[in-house]
Amino acid sequence: MHRIITISREFGSGGRELGKRLAEALGIAYFDKEIIKAVAEHSGLAEQYVESISEKSVSFYYPISYNTTFAGIQPLVGEHTDVIAKQNEIIREMAEKSDAVFIGRAADIVLEDYKPLRIFVYADMDSKVARCLARESDAEDYTPKEMEKQIKKIDKGRANFREMITGNKFGSKDDYDLMINTSGLDIAKLIPAVVAYADCYFDAQKK
Amino acid sequence: MHRIITISREFGSGGRELGKRLAEALGIAYFDKEIIKAVAEHSGLAEQYVESISEKSVSFYYPISYNTTFAGIQPLVGEHTDVIAKQNEIIREMAEKSDAVFIGRAADIVLEDYKPLRIFVYADMDSKVARCLARESDAEDYTPKEMEKQIKKIDKGRANFREMITGNKFGSKDDYDLMINTSGLDIAKLIPAVVAYADCYFDAQKK
Repeated sequence: MHRIITISREFGSGGRELGKRLAEALGIAYFDKEIIKAVAEHSGLAEQYVESISEKSVSFYYPISYNTTFAGIQPLVGEHTDVIAKQNEIIREMAEKSDAVFIGRAADIVLEDYKPLRIFVYADMDSKVARCLARESDAEDYTPKEMEKQIKKIDKGRANFREMITGNKFGSKDDYDLMINTSGLDIAKLIPAVVAYADCYFDAQKK
Repeated sequence: MHRIITISREFGSGGRELGKRLAEALGIAYFDKEIIKAVAEHSGLAEQYVESISEKSVSFYYPISYNTTFAGIQPLVGEHTDVIAKQNEIIREMAEKSDAVFIGRAADIVLEDYKPLRIFVYADMDSKVARCLARESDAEDYTPKEMEKQIKKIDKGRANFREMITGNKFGSKDDYDLMINTSGLDIAKLIPAVVAYADCYFDAQKK
């Protein structure tokens, strides 16, 4: 069975960079936007649209209170759940091919049979705002206050998506093997520690 | 300023072993029972008594609902708060002497001016029960079910102590820099990863 690492992360915590560098260090595949792309191709939907719904809960779009079982909401929000189902199928196909790092999309739940190394990356708000502002393109021009609002909004969507699937609070320790606070840290310098943890984790799986 | 590492942990998760091995690997001081010993010496109280109260909340002993400010409860539970005050003083003295790893006793809060590396160690219940049963002395003879009850009771005390001080839930990610799930892992093999993280953390502090 392939070694699978999943990264859940707060927006702006550097989780994506950590995942990418970790995959490079381990010499394994890395899936992030690739998932969106594949879902869009298979479903005929626009990438942007797929991305907009692939990490948010149904209730984020349909604020009326539904029963949270998929069966109950299927007729109302068919396209949404179709996209999630396709996304899960593609994630499973990718995991079957090789060792890989997956960013977001609840891949830790989708691939739980692999006993993935489940990493959660987070940071304090000041660090997240600073990180986001530093990588901001010229086109956007947020104040720190606006950026904070943006971060909270995105994480609210992730939290809703997560809670819908697991029933647990986003960032709840029992859902993860390793939780890394990146506040003030250089992500590149963190990689040796995460590689060492991954070695230990996958060695234990062999037994 | 000295490099301080604090370990908070769920009972049976191997946090103490991790702290001890980490201190050895880094060649720095390690304080655990030593804190109890010093408090007992300074206060004239029995070590066992000091230990019994040093990580539990006031409300754990006095189940009536008090105002949670120390000032408010002082007259009623003088000895308890005296012991905590003495413990905090001793923790501060120890941190002033050298780099060190501290186990429990909310040292991360007491020493927050040091910007300690705050580690939380946890595990799933099955792993904790297995770890506790494996290290059990012949004198005690718990069934797994009894051991689980014991673990929950001890962690309830720690959680109460923690919540009294921080207002946060025990094991809440925002209180920590690194959270390690030790389920199924060999603590000794985890040390290189934690050492690498510590290097990264303290390097960032220098800037």
